[in-house]
Amino acid sequence: MRTVDLIHRKRDGEELAVEELQFLIDSYTRGDIPEYQMAAFLMAVYFSGMSDREVSAMTESMLNSGSTVDLSAIPGIKVDKHSTGGVGDKTSLIAAPLAASAGVVVPMISGRALGHTGGTLDKLESIPGFRTDLTVDEFRALLEQYNLAFIGQTLDVAPADGKLYALRDATATVESIPLIATSIMAKKLAVGLDALVLDVKVGSGAFMKKQVDARRLAQMMVGIGRRMDKRVQALITDMSQPLGYAVGNALEVMEVSQTLQNAGPADLTRISLELAARMIYLGKVAKTLDEAREIAQANLLDGSGYRKLKEVIQAQGGNPQVLDRFDLLPNATGAQEITTARAGYVSAIDAELIGQASSLIGAGRNTKEDTIDPAVGVILEVKVGQKIDAGSILCRIYYTGEEHLEEAAELVEDAFKISQQPVDERDLILEVVS
Amino acid sequence: MRTVDLIHRKRDGEELAVEELQFLIDSYTRGDIPEYQMAAFLMAVYFSGMSDREVSAMTESMLNSGSTVDLSAIPGIKVDKHSTGGVGDKTSLIAAPLAASAGVVVPMISGRALGHTGGTLDKLESIPGFRTDLTVDEFRALLEQYNLAFIGQTLDVAPADGKLYALRDATATVESIPLIATSIMAKKLAVGLDALVLDVKVGSGAFMKKQVDARRLAQMMVGIGRRMDKRVQALITDMSQPLGYAVGNALEVMEVSQTLQNAGPADLTRISLELAARMIYLGKVAKTLDEAREIAQANLLDGSGYRKLKEVIQAQGGNPQVLDRFDLLPNATGAQEITTARAGYVSAIDAELIGQASSLIGAGRNTKEDTIDPAVGVILEVKVGQKIDAGSILCRIYYTGEEHLEEAAELVEDAFKISQQPVDERDLILEVVS
Repeated sequence: MRTVDLIHRKRDGEELAVEELQFLIDSYTRGDIPEYQMAAFLMAVYFSGMSDREVSAMTESMLNSGSTVDLSAIPGIKVDKHSTGGVGDKTSLIAAPLAASAGVVVPMISGRALGHTGGTLDKLESIPGFRTDLTVDEFRALLEQYNLAFIGQTLDVAPADGKLYALRDATATVESIPLIATSIMAKKLAVGLDALVLDVKVGSGAFMKKQVDARRLAQMMVGIGRRMDKRVQALITDMSQPLGYAVGNALEVMEVSQTLQNAGPADLTRISLELAARMIYLGKVAKTLDEAREIAQANLLDGSGYRKLKEVIQAQGGNPQVLDRFDLLPNATGAQEITTARAGYVSAIDAELIGQASSLIGAGRNTKEDTIDPAVGVILEVKVGQKIDAGSILCRIYYTGEEHLEEAAELVEDAFKISQQPVDERDLILEVVS
Repeated sequence: MRTVDLIHRKRDGEELAVEELQFLIDSYTRGDIPEYQMAAFLMAVYFSGMSDREVSAMTESMLNSGSTVDLSAIPGIKVDKHSTGGVGDKTSLIAAPLAASAGVVVPMISGRALGHTGGTLDKLESIPGFRTDLTVDEFRALLEQYNLAFIGQTLDVAPADGKLYALRDATATVESIPLIATSIMAKKLAVGLDALVLDVKVGSGAFMKKQVDARRLAQMMVGIGRRMDKRVQALITDMSQPLGYAVGNALEVMEVSQTLQNAGPADLTRISLELAARMIYLGKVAKTLDEAREIAQANLLDGSGYRKLKEVIQAQGGNPQVLDRFDLLPNATGAQEITTARAGYVSAIDAELIGQASSLIGAGRNTKEDTIDPAVGVILEVKVGQKIDAGSILCRIYYTGEEHLEEAAELVEDAFKISQQPVDERDLILEVVS
């Protein structure tokens, strides 16, 4: 088998065989295929795509490229949740405790912020003392005791993915649907999951700008799961405006706390409950999805989810009191109000621009080496559809230093569109793929 | 300027600026851009193509990547000829002496065989003593004295091309029209040419299988020439059957000698005369193309071209008597006749299969490291359109060893198609691009 022939055939739109993809991934991981051949292959995939059979084969090779985490000794059905990333997307911190408090085992493997989107790990680390660098044994013990634990992608799973991702990042091949699907699924399935709920975001603040792309990605990932006997469901949800009001790590933890006490934003509450319900349903705690929805709702209303998150924060070394006393979280030192000169209706809040502004003042990172300022971010005062008067506050930027503040303020101002006509409400949950 | 952004934009079909392509080629040649980024860029070019402005900019950067050969001290107009490669294509060895004997200065930079196509350098080296590894000073001196000299691509010109070609070869990006155009033109224009005649081959035996691709390649190369103030004309010629009768290095030298004595095959004579005429016209020896054609014809009939080749063979260390006494050339030790069982008309002789067969028994090379057997090859006994009886000899395979002989014979048998109906003649010169 010659690598150049495989590149050639993929370039010409042919389907590669399972063992050919296996050869590519195995040889590349071992260092037997040079980076430049894999780079050409990835660009050929970008243009020629991959069949469902190919993405399944590639995923399987990637997840077999390193060790896998065996959770079979832990009783119960293991269900993880993954979001493709958005702005203000803190649903993991709400849905996971809700599902865990209902009896689902939730081994949460979380990522970090990159570009304009946030990462669950960074949000958790804004809680003083919180540790995400667990060993596998610690992770297992926490899961057994609490049904829920949060761990970083520090596990030695799917090393092929790490190597491929770095290469994609340098060769403009990140935005390939089959490559995104294999990357997500290889990492997730390398941890002994039984089921997975996916939140595929679509809109200006998401990686996928078009619903047709989001659908294709969701279908691919659900298909990979099916071929590997894992139950996978995907929601396609709107990310044209930030989710909830808070964008920024500690600010989002505060909003999580409010939401788990049933005092959060309607959009965030709605998506989090639906994700939790799907996790509860796939976790076989409920026989029907409707029953699962009732359980999720009940665990929100009676505070079970809230208490579960507190428990896990304490178990992972954090101070659980932060959920009640926000002054214990890192706090910004300054706030700048952004106001509108015109009255009307908020017709759009560009999530990508809000995310970029927030990242610029320190809430995100542009390269993996950047450090995060947990205190800073943006809190919206309005959402799309809302009627506003001239002079209204649109949002506040919370900062700790004035570097980039002006630039961030300009981005935020550009993000808001005001129209004279009332605005139709956009659906929040656009599709379900299962 | 970030390389990944340039890859990204090329991937998305955007046109890159002159200085962006310059940055890419310069940095890559210096080793500042890693192979994997250039590999991804090349695959993006394969899919997204390049504008005429882009190929010109890339060619200029490539030819400026190393030293250039200055021939300005030599009086006269310098005109080279380049073929994109075919089977039995020995026109350089005929057209160049015809043009040189008419007063055009012809600095012939020639290549070697690769795959199923032959190379002028290998043909010349079948002549005992012939040296192609000239120094630049020797090359200049020969040009001044004889108007003609043959040199290999050993000159330190366009090093970016050598590096890029090796990468393309390993990443399935050889067959990209803009990349082929830039590669040819950078090497050619790095030698102080005033004009260039291109022979773009199309058909089963050529690199370009479709006329539309051959035309696009020809147009690109002519356009690059125009932007750099060089006069470039391209013929698009048929390569569906081998050119002439002889395929194989020494065998082709014999056919060259016959053709320069006006006793060669009609197709080979016709194309060689037309190429020579274009060289004479671009070399401003004649005012019109028709006048140039008359000069080429006259120099064939009066033996000037034949004597010119003899002179140059002697000047480059070879034995000029080989053109009269073919037994002085390397000769095969065995010949195998391929006959037809059926009577009818020869409707096709697949040039690629004949080329592969010839290469298989030693006339060509599959990797750059293979050595050539100058004696072996195939001599056709018939051409397309010819009426044949059952039992007729279609061709003879000339070999020195029996390894691969059987396999070669099978390829050759497959190459001939016999039909019961008379066959329409195919045009030899399909188009002129200028």
